[in-house]
Amino acid sequence: MSPHPNAPEVLVREVGLRDGIQGLATIGTEDKLAWLAREADAGIPAFELTSFVPAHVLPQFFDAEDLVARGKRQCKAALSALVLNDKGARRALASGVDGIVFVISASAAHSAKNARTTPEDALAAVRQLIASLRSLPGRPRITGAIATAFGCTYQGAISPELVLSLAEGLAAAGVDELSLGDTVGFAGPRQVRELFTRLRNELGGLPLGAHFHDTRGMGMANVLAALDAGATRFDASLGGLGGCPFAPGATGNIATEDLCFLLDEYGVDTGVDLEKLLAVRRWLAQLLPHEPLHGALSRAGLPRAVHS
Amino acid sequence: MSPHPNAPEVLVREVGLRDGIQGLATIGTEDKLAWLAREADAGIPAFELTSFVPAHVLPQFFDAEDLVARGKRQCKAALSALVLNDKGARRALASGVDGIVFVISASAAHSAKNARTTPEDALAAVRQLIASLRSLPGRPRITGAIATAFGCTYQGAISPELVLSLAEGLAAAGVDELSLGDTVGFAGPRQVRELFTRLRNELGGLPLGAHFHDTRGMGMANVLAALDAGATRFDASLGGLGGCPFAPGATGNIATEDLCFLLDEYGVDTGVDLEKLLAVRRWLAQLLPHEPLHGALSRAGLPRAVHS
Repeated sequence: MSPHPNAPEVLVREVGLRDGIQGLATIGTEDKLAWLAREADAGIPAFELTSFVPAHVLPQFFDAEDLVARGKRQCKAALSALVLNDKGARRALASGVDGIVFVISASAAHSAKNARTTPEDALAAVRQLIASLRSLPGRPRITGAIATAFGCTYQGAISPELVLSLAEGLAAAGVDELSLGDTVGFAGPRQVRELFTRLRNELGGLPLGAHFHDTRGMGMANVLAALDAGATRFDASLGGLGGCPFAPGATGNIATEDLCFLLDEYGVDTGVDLEKLLAVRRWLAQLLPHEPLHGALSRAGLPRAVHS
Repeated sequence: MSPHPNAPEVLVREVGLRDGIQGLATIGTEDKLAWLAREADAGIPAFELTSFVPAHVLPQFFDAEDLVARGKRQCKAALSALVLNDKGARRALASGVDGIVFVISASAAHSAKNARTTPEDALAAVRQLIASLRSLPGRPRITGAIATAFGCTYQGAISPELVLSLAEGLAAAGVDELSLGDTVGFAGPRQVRELFTRLRNELGGLPLGAHFHDTRGMGMANVLAALDAGATRFDASLGGLGGCPFAPGATGNIATEDLCFLLDEYGVDTGVDLEKLLAVRRWLAQLLPHEPLHGALSRAGLPRAVHS
């Protein structure tokens, strides 16, 4: 479909190499680089490539520094990395990555399990990281990401006021963009629309991103609700791979191919070649033959007339 | 979630007993009645119970008259039946069903295969049916439903002008409500929003319904787009059962349980007990052990906090 004249500029960020693989057996560096190369070639402009966490906690990210260095030589896509604390942030900075996604959990219980910290200490670490960047040339882009922003398997409901307060803290710290994560698939479109609308109204012009899981089938409806409320950056994983090991009941991210199909129909010029992207998904299914992949577009293919 | 003060009144219509089973081996009348009873008990207020088509074409509906008669004695839900021509309409009228869904295809190719008629002849049959109802006391509610309204596997794109023209014809014939069907899962939320907005603006206050399939994962996003554009009646099948045998590539309807979850979160008071509905889905999975069911809510369950 042709771009819609009023469609926003939207960035699709593949997080399969981070969120997608963190529950799996380790994947080798060469395979990760092949995945990056193929999906970048299909037009995906941004990747969350790895996570700077201790290798004894998540061995999948054993090669974080090496992967960033080689990934940057290999392709022009924007490469970011997830961090949970100041130590991770220092490693990410040193790696030369293009973007750092600093995740803080709105849920104190999830924060303790996922990052062994409190939301307040995590926010302090973000402030410290950004203060240390002030004088740095070519500084990476900093995303303040709020996990469990729509509910938590441990804590249940999360109040919008708590999320807004953390978002204000991140904005005051100087992040370049904000992202809300529905880490365990609690969100529905009404909640998404209301929270993003409040973020947009109360935090000025900071770019807003969304990180949805499709746990209860609301992923695409939540994307639409967030888009309509002004979000312009969307995380997804190819084939819906993924799920947080510290969030019981979580399933995969929304599928990158379904997201791109929705955006394409919505009139957004994503720059992604859907046929190529579906071919990369088939390659990924062969790379990970024992992992169930999700998403609907791959099952039905792109809509077109057939001759009966 | 509590009803939202501004949420519309929405009717959920279970079509599993019609659209869901038409590709399957025949199901017995007792099993159909048990399905109806269980799902009505879970709070589903309306059912498309059967189709008045020749039994040699679709033997699943061999028991249409008997099913309507016994269904009406058994439960208070609104029971409707699908028809494709004047002969079916006469049978439906005689059966005493509460509603008749007269389906005409926007695609001439689909119309020929599915109903062996042209869209124009089908429209004439709707006019004739409604004219014959004028003097009838307790007349059934007539829904004019436009199939392949968003695209067709045989014909490809369907122009919005064609759909609007058919909708105007149905409105002029005197239907009580209009419904648009994405028979083969071509629709995306932009197209849905634009078409429903035009229908609402150009056809006055006729209630609008939507019949979505989840072929390419857009089902829930399309529901949201249609809701926002004023649609208030939604078809779905429990477990996403279904697919039109005369529409290659079509998969099941959107899942009733996922639809009700979305509406509940949206603030609509559907009257449906989601726990009971999920129990009926488990019963259905046992009734049809060889049929793959779909939908996400059943996999994850309702969102709630767990104690780790």
